[in-house]
Amino acid sequence: MDIEATVEQMARSAKQASVIVSRSDTETKNNALAALARRLESEAGFLMTENRKDLDQGKKAGLSKPMLDRLTLTRAAIEDMARGLREVAALDDPVGAVVKTWMRPNGLQVSRVRIPLGVIGIIYESRPNVTVDAAALCLKAGNAVILRGGSEARNSNGALAVLIQKGLEEAGLPGDAVQVIPVTDRKAVLAMLQAEECIDLIVPRGGEGLIRFVVANSRIPVLKHYKGVCHVYVDADADLLMAGEICFNAKVQRPGVCNAMETLLVHQDIAAAFLTHAAPRLQKAGVELRGCPETCRILPGVKAAQEEDWPAEYLDLILAVKVVSDMEAAVDHITRYGSSHTETIVTSDYARARRFVREVDASVVLVNASTRFNDGGQLGLGAEIGISTSKLHAFGPMGLEELTTTKFVVFGDGQIRTT
Amino acid sequence: MDIEATVEQMARSAKQASVIVSRSDTETKNNALAALARRLESEAGFLMTENRKDLDQGKKAGLSKPMLDRLTLTRAAIEDMARGLREVAALDDPVGAVVKTWMRPNGLQVSRVRIPLGVIGIIYESRPNVTVDAAALCLKAGNAVILRGGSEARNSNGALAVLIQKGLEEAGLPGDAVQVIPVTDRKAVLAMLQAEECIDLIVPRGGEGLIRFVVANSRIPVLKHYKGVCHVYVDADADLLMAGEICFNAKVQRPGVCNAMETLLVHQDIAAAFLTHAAPRLQKAGVELRGCPETCRILPGVKAAQEEDWPAEYLDLILAVKVVSDMEAAVDHITRYGSSHTETIVTSDYARARRFVREVDASVVLVNASTRFNDGGQLGLGAEIGISTSKLHAFGPMGLEELTTTKFVVFGDGQIRTT
Repeated sequence: MDIEATVEQMARSAKQASVIVSRSDTETKNNALAALARRLESEAGFLMTENRKDLDQGKKAGLSKPMLDRLTLTRAAIEDMARGLREVAALDDPVGAVVKTWMRPNGLQVSRVRIPLGVIGIIYESRPNVTVDAAALCLKAGNAVILRGGSEARNSNGALAVLIQKGLEEAGLPGDAVQVIPVTDRKAVLAMLQAEECIDLIVPRGGEGLIRFVVANSRIPVLKHYKGVCHVYVDADADLLMAGEICFNAKVQRPGVCNAMETLLVHQDIAAAFLTHAAPRLQKAGVELRGCPETCRILPGVKAAQEEDWPAEYLDLILAVKVVSDMEAAVDHITRYGSSHTETIVTSDYARARRFVREVDASVVLVNASTRFNDGGQLGLGAEIGISTSKLHAFGPMGLEELTTTKFVVFGDGQIRTT
Repeated sequence: MDIEATVEQMARSAKQASVIVSRSDTETKNNALAALARRLESEAGFLMTENRKDLDQGKKAGLSKPMLDRLTLTRAAIEDMARGLREVAALDDPVGAVVKTWMRPNGLQVSRVRIPLGVIGIIYESRPNVTVDAAALCLKAGNAVILRGGSEARNSNGALAVLIQKGLEEAGLPGDAVQVIPVTDRKAVLAMLQAEECIDLIVPRGGEGLIRFVVANSRIPVLKHYKGVCHVYVDADADLLMAGEICFNAKVQRPGVCNAMETLLVHQDIAAAFLTHAAPRLQKAGVELRGCPETCRILPGVKAAQEEDWPAEYLDLILAVKVVSDMEAAVDHITRYGSSHTETIVTSDYARARRFVREVDASVVLVNASTRFNDGGQLGLGAEIGISTSKLHAFGPMGLEELTTTKFVVFGDGQIRTT
């Protein structure tokens, strides 16, 4: 098989399908999502049989236990996917929404109207549920989508592709609106990244290496998320009990995700009081602390942090801790080492709360709340397709609106331009 | 001089300066714009002396008359630049605007707040007024900017850079917030395109070759505008007098710009009546028509259009004309040959007006108005930095808002995440 030609042909079919999907009404798109949900449930046996092939090969290939877990389609996981589809169907359709309307002095009525992006390419790793989630969000926002999953999930994704296309056709939509690339090597990725005439957006989901490869080779705009080096700054005027709860939640509740806290910054005036209160609970939960000299003085026995700890995204039960002279020093530290992802201040001081919010450069800045809230569902966007840490188009969690753009619609009565 | 190292150093300085500019209040930014306007006026002699060097070299190098015209800084052109600066100062500051606020069931108050993009790189050709316009818009939106102008305007841009930096410093802002790269070869462009750690957005303004070079080589998001192949579709139910006025304006008022009409589509039922009415006036104004067979039948003597005429951006007094069977055929033609720029329907039919607006894929879609209104000033955005024909981040004219993004600001009372 000629991979480049195959991908190019898929991109062209996707572009044609995208025209039809972009003009489809909400009910038709929701019918397709409902049809797919029913098929996932009725064909769960088929899905699990195909998934079993991937799991057998994965075991032979020596995949780690967490990777095999993420790859596994249990009956419960399939039910979760079906529920997710029905949740997306229940979300408001962003397409056609009038964002703003105004009149011009010459009588022209100008509006900005939300429209789909067109064709979205998603490149991801081995979790088959991403296939269904991403397809559902792109479709609901009126887009066609081309999915390139990981080689480990090849059979599972192939089976899902069959069901998705049947679901689309059952609702009267073109099956090519959602296509799964049947080959999984980098050549297929490169071919996607060159298809600038047909694909409007690339979303890479996976490790930093994959994302940097995509950015370096794409002629198509990329929405990306490099890493989450999230801080909690406990201010001199913090409620220390509240700060302890927030830090524990931000670090321990789910340490392996991008919105978990990686570095704790503590104002020097309350450092001793706060750290002697908060550290034992974190340590008891298995958190390894790595402290600045002042932290190590307050908490004897804590390992000294090295320079490489400050920009580290541990994704694990490890926490860097630094005592800072004041909020300015905290903001400077975040500006230097942060990843524009999620930053929290815990404080009771009105002026500092406002200033932190204004000066900290991150997609989500919080006052007195856990970093774990940087999530499309938690912030009320419905579902999310990822979190963008670059500023163009979307910054922060990306929901349905971020899978659309706006066009200008102008109603006139024969106006012409004179200057 | 090591160009790569120079550009890298400029990008780092710009990033530092961007932090200060992003936190500056509206008054400070407006003071800088006003100071620059005064300096342009008081130093007009210096500017014209430097500009004279470029003009002399340009003449020696055999630049065309239109290119020399665009390069020339007359006293009137300098006054125009100063007026433009005062107009940008008068525009609303987009930074800090709360786009939307909502409450979550757990009491979190979530807002989307407008923030600057950071550092913007602008790559453009030989018009020195772009140096001032682009600097003003980027600065007002709270960004730092790095400008790489054309080699033909090297002395003019160098002189403007001096005045801009003095204006910034007079207002207490860092001079490095606006920097002009002193070398003009492609190596400097390449170095900009690699500075992904410091530059957040690249805006290329110029010919399609330059833009494709930038897209192919950039690791930084690019906002681009390839070309404007704009259509006017005259429907069976059009007011033919109105249609004639709109077509004449769209083609003749300023044929060399991207929002001029390049192809006229006419419904077959009114083709003879409309073309015999509209064509003579266009031809009298010097417009060369290139018609489909039916057009040539109606208008004997009109040159036959070739396949390459349909996707052509003439930027000249040439117009391709095609008679279509109905609106669907017109929309299909636009979908196939259009450039997502500007499309107009002239009609009196309510349903077709609505359908055209919904189905045509373009950054600006108009009913009964000239294509020439696709312009930030005309549509009410204030000034514009260009027109985007790709959908990510901005689609259509880009004003101050398009030089910003939003972040999420979350106010809590100690909320933590439980699921």
